Amino acid sequence: MNDCLFCKIARKEIPATVLHENDRTLCFMDIKPVNQGHALVIPKKHFADYASTSDEALREMAVMARRLGEAMMKSLGAPGFNIAVNNGRAAGQLVDHVHLHVIPRFEGDGHAQWHGEAYKEGEMVAVAEKLRVALG
Amino acid sequence: MNDCLFCKIARKEIPATVLHENDRTLCFMDIKPVNQGHALVIPKKHFADYASTSDEALREMAVMARRLGEAMMKSLGAPGFNIAVNNGRAAGQLVDHVHLHVIPRFEGDGHAQWHGEAYKEGEMVAVAEKLRVALG
Repeated sequence: MNDCLFCKIARKEIPATVLHENDRTLCFMDIKPVNQGHALVIPKKHFADYASTSDEALREMAVMARRLGEAMMKSLGAPGFNIAVNNGRAAGQLVDHVHLHVIPRFEGDGHAQWHGEAYKEGEMVAVAEKLRVALG
Repeated sequence: MNDCLFCKIARKEIPATVLHENDRTLCFMDIKPVNQGHALVIPKKHFADYASTSDEALREMAVMARRLGEAMMKSLGAPGFNIAVNNGRAAGQLVDHVHLHVIPRFEGDGHAQWHGEAYKEGEMVAVAEKLRVALG
């Protein structure tokens, strides 16, 4: 896509700090990291979001994200990492080219997990039934 | 693993609200959801965390998570979804059997994105170099 920021990075029309690439996938540093080392994995081919990405590209990104996470543990002393996908504005997606965030995590880094809340009687079954129908 | 909670769910020794399964993968409802419909994707085979999971299992989970996300948008009216992996205690992992969280998201649901902060001069290049060495 001509106007897509990440397509421009993939085509090297806009500079980025690249960590790794092959014919299909690119990893580069997030310039506003949640923790230092925070990186992104993208397919070079344009897909607007995770929901519209080819199975092949999803598979490659999943394995590449693990390589990045392992590299963060090995080289940055991070005891853990998160992988995150934001699909859609409501989920925090800002750039409309599918990307995985890989974020090194450190004890006491202050990034709070989201709060979960138990279902009330009968609620879970009703929601699950809707999802099962949609899954087919 | 005999004592693993998610292995027990996979073996049907502990009940769960299952959404979908095949020979290798299981999707079931998180009982303490960040938003209603929040579900987990696991391989039936035991892997302690994302970093130690086989490529094959990672690939299957990535595609299954997309199916779940799409089902959430279609059946729950969610305009978006997040996929999240917590690898290690420092990253919020609570059960030592690899799992992907898939969370439907709604406008104004109050779950804040983590705050990112720009690097200072020279910092990003130094961190990137460490990661590149580890990636090999």
